[in-house]
Amino acid sequence: MSQFDSAALAEPVLGPTETSIGIGMLGFGTVGTGTYRMLRDNREAIRKKAGVDVSLVRVGIRDAAKERAIGRDLLTTDLTAVVDDPRVSIVVELMGGVSPAGELIERALRQGKHVVTANKELLAKSGPRLINLAAREGLDLHFEAAVGGGIPLIQPLRHQLSGNDVLKMMGILNGTTNYVLTRMTDEGLDLGDALREAQSKGYAEADPTADVDGFDAQYKLAILASIAFGKAVPVEGVYREGIQKIARRDIHFAQVLGYKIKLVGVVEALEDGGILARVHPTMLPRNHPLASVDDVYNALWLRGDFVGDVMLSGRGAGADPTGSAVVGDIMDVCRNIRYGGAGNSVPLDEGIATAPIEKCRTRYYVRMVIQDRPKALGCIATVFGNCNVSLAAMEMRGVDSRLGEIVFLTHVSSEASIQRALKAMRNIHIVEQIGNVIRVEH
Amino acid sequence: MSQFDSAALAEPVLGPTETSIGIGMLGFGTVGTGTYRMLRDNREAIRKKAGVDVSLVRVGIRDAAKERAIGRDLLTTDLTAVVDDPRVSIVVELMGGVSPAGELIERALRQGKHVVTANKELLAKSGPRLINLAAREGLDLHFEAAVGGGIPLIQPLRHQLSGNDVLKMMGILNGTTNYVLTRMTDEGLDLGDALREAQSKGYAEADPTADVDGFDAQYKLAILASIAFGKAVPVEGVYREGIQKIARRDIHFAQVLGYKIKLVGVVEALEDGGILARVHPTMLPRNHPLASVDDVYNALWLRGDFVGDVMLSGRGAGADPTGSAVVGDIMDVCRNIRYGGAGNSVPLDEGIATAPIEKCRTRYYVRMVIQDRPKALGCIATVFGNCNVSLAAMEMRGVDSRLGEIVFLTHVSSEASIQRALKAMRNIHIVEQIGNVIRVEH
Repeated sequence: MSQFDSAALAEPVLGPTETSIGIGMLGFGTVGTGTYRMLRDNREAIRKKAGVDVSLVRVGIRDAAKERAIGRDLLTTDLTAVVDDPRVSIVVELMGGVSPAGELIERALRQGKHVVTANKELLAKSGPRLINLAAREGLDLHFEAAVGGGIPLIQPLRHQLSGNDVLKMMGILNGTTNYVLTRMTDEGLDLGDALREAQSKGYAEADPTADVDGFDAQYKLAILASIAFGKAVPVEGVYREGIQKIARRDIHFAQVLGYKIKLVGVVEALEDGGILARVHPTMLPRNHPLASVDDVYNALWLRGDFVGDVMLSGRGAGADPTGSAVVGDIMDVCRNIRYGGAGNSVPLDEGIATAPIEKCRTRYYVRMVIQDRPKALGCIATVFGNCNVSLAAMEMRGVDSRLGEIVFLTHVSSEASIQRALKAMRNIHIVEQIGNVIRVEH
Repeated sequence: MSQFDSAALAEPVLGPTETSIGIGMLGFGTVGTGTYRMLRDNREAIRKKAGVDVSLVRVGIRDAAKERAIGRDLLTTDLTAVVDDPRVSIVVELMGGVSPAGELIERALRQGKHVVTANKELLAKSGPRLINLAAREGLDLHFEAAVGGGIPLIQPLRHQLSGNDVLKMMGILNGTTNYVLTRMTDEGLDLGDALREAQSKGYAEADPTADVDGFDAQYKLAILASIAFGKAVPVEGVYREGIQKIARRDIHFAQVLGYKIKLVGVVEALEDGGILARVHPTMLPRNHPLASVDDVYNALWLRGDFVGDVMLSGRGAGADPTGSAVVGDIMDVCRNIRYGGAGNSVPLDEGIATAPIEKCRTRYYVRMVIQDRPKALGCIATVFGNCNVSLAAMEMRGVDSRLGEIVFLTHVSSEASIQRALKAMRNIHIVEQIGNVIRVEH
């Protein structure tokens, strides 16, 4: 990396002037670095389009010992001092985690400072409270970078699409798991190998729990659902299932049946006015618009009552794409400060009812190992039938002389019926193992 | 269609109050009807998200005799009176055409009224002047519906993506021609039949010139380029070629070679700081993200220096999708009025240099009919070679005992070299006809 000329960005401006607005950044990791680089490299164009110069006046970090690609003079470990700095008009929080990020953002808002953040966990857990605080104070709280990296998602939902009743949304919201599943599909890797490859490429953390277990996608889906429905969606209201159980055999059978397996977040509007929000591995028909979103790409597909189907896709993670979203937000806040507008955030209403996963109605894929005997198949089909689950397709292959692996694809069924059938199945002696159950988008 | 209860939308509000903002609409055709329906059907949700009630107080039309799905009491043929009505704070121009729409919008802005418009022709021809007038007056001029129907395009370019240097943009911007080309590809129709089908479905006008000849896409590309580069892009600076010459045989050869033919608008940033903007039929590799955008769908793909690749797609036309974009704009203006912000439009800079098509460098498809003789192929290949055009692929089939049809796919060449080769080709007696030349995206 070439020389960083932090001085060029950090001319000593004493508070926002007619032509310059001061930024205080909290955190200087991956996203902070991308944001800094973009502010520096595209400075002139940003100044023209934002109508003012953006000056990075202070950067708060936690570990002073770490090497950073920015001038030392800008750095401080006193995070509160960054927020309180009178030269800072916009606090850009890029440290992640609930605390102390939440307290620092609140402190900024209470001082009349605008906030830009990329913190999905905080927004999923405390977003409605912070959004409503910002709205009350007439301040901007922007968080485009929290979901989908550089893809415009939050603001299009808040603005251009906001007249629509959202009927259904589906998103590939986690780049790590999408990369892992893509490698399993394209190269026949198993999950462990694909994950190690993702780690070696910097696409997965050393501890990949947040991604693999679906927490990251759950946070993001809660945020998207809140914005789309204009109501607080509690993160606990979003059903979550990770990709841990996806085996190479599932990928194989999905391909045979004409599907791809993706970790998908789905939100459906229910007739009772509530929503069903869920994150889980999903089999998508090969011609589904989300099925071709591979590698670390993210995408959101939605259906609105007037707009019809819309899809937005792009790079969902990484320093530069996420930095692009942070800088877009900073420029918006700058324009709002400069041209007299500020805080067109509309407060979120009280929470919306979130239905339990048992309300899910979709198709299901069930893979099981059974004893290879006469009447085995008839017996299993009868159990499905008794539970009101009708079958659409089947694939079978021998495991050894005694056992066979069998895969069923059901017609649309209720989750409750499927669970009842699986419970009954576990009591049949010819069923050796229920390998996996995956919801199928139709 | 059910009863229209225009009274519910048109409570007699006398000018915008704390809780209601008055809309004056100019034009009540397809887009006007969609806008009206959305304001009516989603009224309660719009009120909540916009923070105020939206009241349609007057609708200006040109033909009083025509039957309209709206109460007669709202209608007037006095267009100026709609603009001047003191109850109207936002003028929504949906009549199309340069005049009188342009004068009416200017009149509205000069009276301090915000404007929402879907008028691509006017924006392509007078957009920079109107945008800069609105910016000077501190007013909103929104036009999301002018490009890509319901897809969020203009505002994401202006806001979330605005920190990026746009390196390249490609868009399928005209639904009519995309439908025609899709039907030619999927059903083997010829252009005339596909166009008649589009007309019978309401996807094409009785006079389809604006779509088929590429004017519509040219207008839209000029608008997108202006916003993406923050500088006026004159519509004459956008090279334009329609789909008239696309034959069934071109579609066939494209398929054989692994491509799909689409009418694509392309803008590339050149090294000299200018741009090359062009609309023409384009062969896209089958796995290109735009290649699967079929029927009346539209999409914009772009590459930014930080965000990387982003794609936004959806329904590019029709009453409801376009109405969705108009209503999104209206809600934005309402929020700006309500929460004290207004007009964060940033003026456009003076024009950007637009390069002529001769600066284009891409791959080319050339279809020609030649005499089926020994050495014919060698002769043609030599002409290409002499003009510095190297060949990547070839397909040939007999036409009759005397003639053969031959298709070449070149490596990346300059437009100037191709034109030179074609000129030379026309002087060779074995070349009976140059059937078509299509630019190929690589």
